Amino acid sequence: MDPKVSIIMGSTSDLPVMEAAAKFLNEMQIPFEMNALSAHRTPEEVEKFAQNAHSRGIRVIIAAAGMAAHLPGVIAAMTTVPVIGVPIKASLDGLDALLAIVQMPPGIPVATVGINGAQNAAILAAEILALSDVGLHQKMLQFKEDLKKKIVKANEELKAIKYDYKV
Amino acid sequence: MDPKVSIIMGSTSDLPVMEAAAKFLNEMQIPFEMNALSAHRTPEEVEKFAQNAHSRGIRVIIAAAGMAAHLPGVIAAMTTVPVIGVPIKASLDGLDALLAIVQMPPGIPVATVGINGAQNAAILAAEILALSDVGLHQKMLQFKEDLKKKIVKANEELKAIKYDYKV
Amino acid sequence: MDPKVSIIMGSTSDLPVMEAAAKFLNEMQIPFEMNALSAHRTPEEVEKFAQNAHSRGIRVIIAAAGMAAHLPGVIAAMTTVPVIGVPIKASLDGLDALLAIVQMPPGIPVATVGINGAQNAAILAAEILALSDVGLHQKMLQFKEDLKKKIVKANEELKAIKYDYKV
Amino acid sequence: MDPKVSIIMGSTSDLPVMEAAAKFLNEMQIPFEMNALSAHRTPEEVEKFAQNAHSRGIRVIIAAAGMAAHLPGVIAAMTTVPVIGVPIKASLDGLDALLAIVQMPPGIPVATVGINGAQNAAILAAEILALSDVGLHQKMLQFKEDLKKKIVKANEELKAIKYDYKV
Amino acid sequence: MDPKVSIIMGSTSDLPVMEAAAKFLNEMQIPFEMNALSAHRTPEEVEKFAQNAHSRGIRVIIAAAGMAAHLPGVIAAMTTVPVIGVPIKASLDGLDALLAIVQMPPGIPVATVGINGAQNAAILAAEILALSDVGLHQKMLQFKEDLKKKIVKANEELKAIKYDYKV
Amino acid sequence: MDPKVSIIMGSTSDLPVMEAAAKFLNEMQIPFEMNALSAHRTPEEVEKFAQNAHSRGIRVIIAAAGMAAHLPGVIAAMTTVPVIGVPIKASLDGLDALLAIVQMPPGIPVATVGINGAQNAAILAAEILALSDVGLHQKMLQFKEDLKKKIVKANEELKAIKYDYKV
Amino acid sequence: MDPKVSIIMGSTSDLPVMEAAAKFLNEMQIPFEMNALSAHRTPEEVEKFAQNAHSRGIRVIIAAAGMAAHLPGVIAAMTTVPVIGVPIKASLDGLDALLAIVQMPPGIPVATVGINGAQNAAILAAEILALSDVGLHQKMLQFKEDLKKKIVKANEELKAIKYDYKV
Amino acid sequence: MDPKVSIIMGSTSDLPVMEAAAKFLNEMQIPFEMNALSAHRTPEEVEKFAQNAHSRGIRVIIAAAGMAAHLPGVIAAMTTVPVIGVPIKASLDGLDALLAIVQMPPGIPVATVGINGAQNAAILAAEILALSDVGLHQKMLQFKEDLKKKIVKANEELKAIKYDYKV
Repeated sequence: MDPKVSIIMGSTSDLPVMEAAAKFLNEMQIPFEMNALSAHRTPEEVEKFAQNAHSRGIRVIIAAAGMAAHLPGVIAAMTTVPVIGVPIKASLDGLDALLAIVQMPPGIPVATVGINGAQNAAILAAEILALSDVGLHQKMLQFKEDLKKKIVKANEELKAIKYDYKV
Repeated sequence: MDPKVSIIMGSTSDLPVMEAAAKFLNEMQIPFEMNALSAHRTPEEVEKFAQNAHSRGIRVIIAAAGMAAHLPGVIAAMTTVPVIGVPIKASLDGLDALLAIVQMPPGIPVATVGINGAQNAAILAAEILALSDVGLHQKMLQFKEDLKKKIVKANEELKAIKYDYKV
Repeated sequence: MDPKVSIIMGSTSDLPVMEAAAKFLNEMQIPFEMNALSAHRTPEEVEKFAQNAHSRGIRVIIAAAGMAAHLPGVIAAMTTVPVIGVPIKASLDGLDALLAIVQMPPGIPVATVGINGAQNAAILAAEILALSDVGLHQKMLQFKEDLKKKIVKANEELKAIKYDYKV
Repeated sequence: MDPKVSIIMGSTSDLPVMEAAAKFLNEMQIPFEMNALSAHRTPEEVEKFAQNAHSRGIRVIIAAAGMAAHLPGVIAAMTTVPVIGVPIKASLDGLDALLAIVQMPPGIPVATVGINGAQNAAILAAEILALSDVGLHQKMLQFKEDLKKKIVKANEELKAIKYDYKV
Repeated sequence: MDPKVSIIMGSTSDLPVMEAAAKFLNEMQIPFEMNALSAHRTPEEVEKFAQNAHSRGIRVIIAAAGMAAHLPGVIAAMTTVPVIGVPIKASLDGLDALLAIVQMPPGIPVATVGINGAQNAAILAAEILALSDVGLHQKMLQFKEDLKKKIVKANEELKAIKYDYKV
Repeated sequence: MDPKVSIIMGSTSDLPVMEAAAKFLNEMQIPFEMNALSAHRTPEEVEKFAQNAHSRGIRVIIAAAGMAAHLPGVIAAMTTVPVIGVPIKASLDGLDALLAIVQMPPGIPVATVGINGAQNAAILAAEILALSDVGLHQKMLQFKEDLKKKIVKANEELKAIKYDYKV
Repeated sequence: MDPKVSIIMGSTSDLPVMEAAAKFLNEMQIPFEMNALSAHRTPEEVEKFAQNAHSRGIRVIIAAAGMAAHLPGVIAAMTTVPVIGVPIKASLDGLDALLAIVQMPPGIPVATVGINGAQNAAILAAEILALSDVGLHQKMLQFKEDLKKKIVKANEELKAIKYDYKV
Repeated sequence: MDPKVSIIMGSTSDLPVMEAAAKFLNEMQIPFEMNALSAHRTPEEVEKFAQNAHSRGIRVIIAAAGMAAHLPGVIAAMTTVPVIGVPIKASLDGLDALLAIVQMPPGIPVATVGINGAQNAAILAAEILALSDVGLHQKMLQFKEDLKKKIVKANEELKAIKYDYKV
């Protein structure tokens, strides 16, 4: 079983945030890998990774980084595989990481999700893979359907609250 | 007793903030309802809600949302009933939710209150209803009067503080 | 014909922005007035205005202000008539005025619209008045319907654009 | 020839920015369509569009919006087709649109690119389509290669600049 | 002994911050008073206070407020007595209060100090009073001198830290 | 005639903003001086200036600076004469200068006015001087009175605008 | 004559800003080179450049970049030669570039100067080179001395301004 | 052994952040000193320090400051020794200190590192010293090499995590 999604982070301090991505991919039975790479500390490893990703069968890369977050953009520059960037909240409420990931110059896009949005990154990866995988597409339709159940449950909780003038 | 105000939120995680709205409406004896709806998860429910709100007798809608807060604007787009938006602080100190609610494009206003301003949303709803409800108008005049009492109490506390050169 | 909406601004420099509010109210045949008041320069006039607004038949107040924008909040403090605040862009891209209007303390809400959102303020005022005016309600339903026409026109323009691979 | 990418915008005022996306798709010979839709003005059209997109063969949606930018998120909520969001600079330097698009709640990702990043959105769309289109993959590899030429040209210009102490 | 400085706040929740102002005035033996006033809840009291301040012998007013902080500006509008504004950190890290106090329109200045800068407000008040009070001027010169002692103490602490290569 | 107010700036590029301060002081017949000083380029001159200011009869210092604006704070550190800081808009909309002036550490206040608020700085200076100058106090009362006239004029302009439904 | 400073930029659009750096180095007779490199478009060239810089005699690297500015950090990661980063104002007033350059993770510093601060970058480079170059050190002392002349000139201009009450 | 690096801070409250700089210098066996100085409280000491730094053998100055952080810029103005500024997070998430340090006016650069970036400041200092110290240059090359080990360790931790679909 070859991995189709590669989750990349620069340090294990990002792991508590990023495991939400791993869990979602696992739930959707999408084979994935997790790697530590750093745009700054292991640039050659990043280059090797990016240049081999497509031929290894990687179809989506999820790259997380905080502060002056360069990893997603640097990887995106070296591959045609779509790169999803996850800004990690480490300082300035994550605004620095968000801007350092999303404001890429012309020619090198990074598909950016919200601050600490690891699960959303995995959902986006699944949506991309589902374009050519009918079974996964069905699962994603089911997932979208299941999202509504939280609302049903929320409504039940709201109904349980009593006030004299609440109807 | 039909509800006149509808408090909408996307998740019960907003409840600790939004119950201040429920309490104020209850105190003012304004019949209200509470619903969970999501612009993203249950768009058809949102549409049904918005399109029936006026005919069901709803006169003000209070909609709370955090992050990329779309719910108040999406509801406002589908009804002529005034929509009051409450930005919930969930990330970036609530600034993302504030901008995503208040900066509506031309044609679709949302009456935005401050970040986590649930009680103020309910007061604003009451002011709107009081325009055609003399009894409620009296209550609101009384409420405004009562606000001053906090100042009286604050003054008493400040007087109780002793310094050699405090007069 | 008594005015039902009062448009307030602190200086005629706000007029180029605020005339969009006047035009909308005029189009909807809602009687309105325009006044210059300043929370800082004419506080007694503000007080007199706010305290008489309801008995004079004013049902919605639209108050515009820029920079450290105090006018909407100060008026809101002195009346039960709903106050809609319009942050005027005069410095810091209007962010100062937005925060100075929307972040009101508990007890005194201001229904804030977007930066320079004069037309939206007038639409919101019309929505509030339409709650007890069937004719205006019909007009507002029509207005909402008409908003779609811009989209139809936009679609026509987009269709007129030719590219080899545009379908 | 059925369109594979759908470029959506809420108003033709976004066209000067968004035509960079159309040009890139055209250059890459990717069949695409352009539509005007508004999360606020034509919610039913948005819903119809989003629910039929996949069965019509649309594989990527590029949605542009400014201010309290709801369109990308609302579409993303209704389809499993990946949605790329383009924040349009209309106020607050585009920061409001950026936050209103990227900070999506859990479950509904939008692949956000930089402010006014229309071309990057099209490149990202091409990268996604290239995952299952060998010919397009070749073109994208070539495109990445061509990006370097700007640097070569820049170097020539820099060499042409003369200073006494410039080597 | 008539008060020369008046410390004003809108709620006793500001007291933990503002007592640093009281302590400094007390230390400098400057007679002062503390009052609770609210631009929104007790506008007439604010007016009465502001208009009588000068004739009562008040020479500096220190006004604290958080969020959409209107109190300092509203008082400054009604008196020629210098008003020092203290932005209180209650939301958005205090940035809303800072902008709502400092960005006053032309004609009505507020002498703004830093967020939660209560002691600095009192020092500024003392500097103003010292202009016509030789004894206080001497004390302020001494206070400035004493500020250096913290540096001396800090140097001692830094010297006590040992590293092999610390000289 | 000895100067009572000293207007300080770091460069003549600040002059177009700061002349509003000079004009107001001149109008109020307050003797003043204008000097160029730089916290960075002429630190010894700044020190000499600050240490002699009080004995030369200077009673208020108005210091303008942009970007990483150090001048007001550095002067304030070296004198007991009140220092009014004017943040000049040179980059980042003036937010950098505002924060670099207003957020002074404990012990050294700067009385900060709004971005480019030169006239307000002069008014604040006049208010401080008026505490011990009955004639100036009268002029300031008159100035406050005159501010209302702009509102009267604005009202006349607003009345001159005709709409069918404007009352 | 081998270059000691290397000025790097990603595009000739940065040249109008960066030529201030070239001019200063030229004036100081410091041999320098100018190169176009891109962290995204020519990563291998960046790597080659960074790894050879020290052995080629480069002692300071000045790297400019806008938006999600990765170039300075990526170079800094691959060399022990000090890297000075210049954030270029291209969007969001340059705040995105500033944060993407200055907020580097632990281990890889970039010596960041202000937005568009090209000349300051060159001055900083000269200060570093002057540590081991007595002649350059003398020039830098002279440069610091010359900075004061602007103040003298500014003072002359301020003296030339006449007001009745200006002393 | 004379110190080559001087670590300066305004208060011992900055010590918990700044000791990371001391530890790194110590590890690299670079002789350093630590001093408390304040741009505001001990300006003459700052002046004396800055003017003697070069002749005392100081080759790099690391200056930390929070809020309206003037210390690094004021020192940089008085010496040709390179000054590295460390913005300390004390209010507004450190954004005030960052802007007050990095946005220096033309002529006086401060080499700014990230918020609380004490270790990075020391690394930068070591890089500068290594330009004329072959032994230190070797150590810095080794340090850069060692940074990669964290990535190796992170990869081991990531491999130890088991999911059914993790490859």
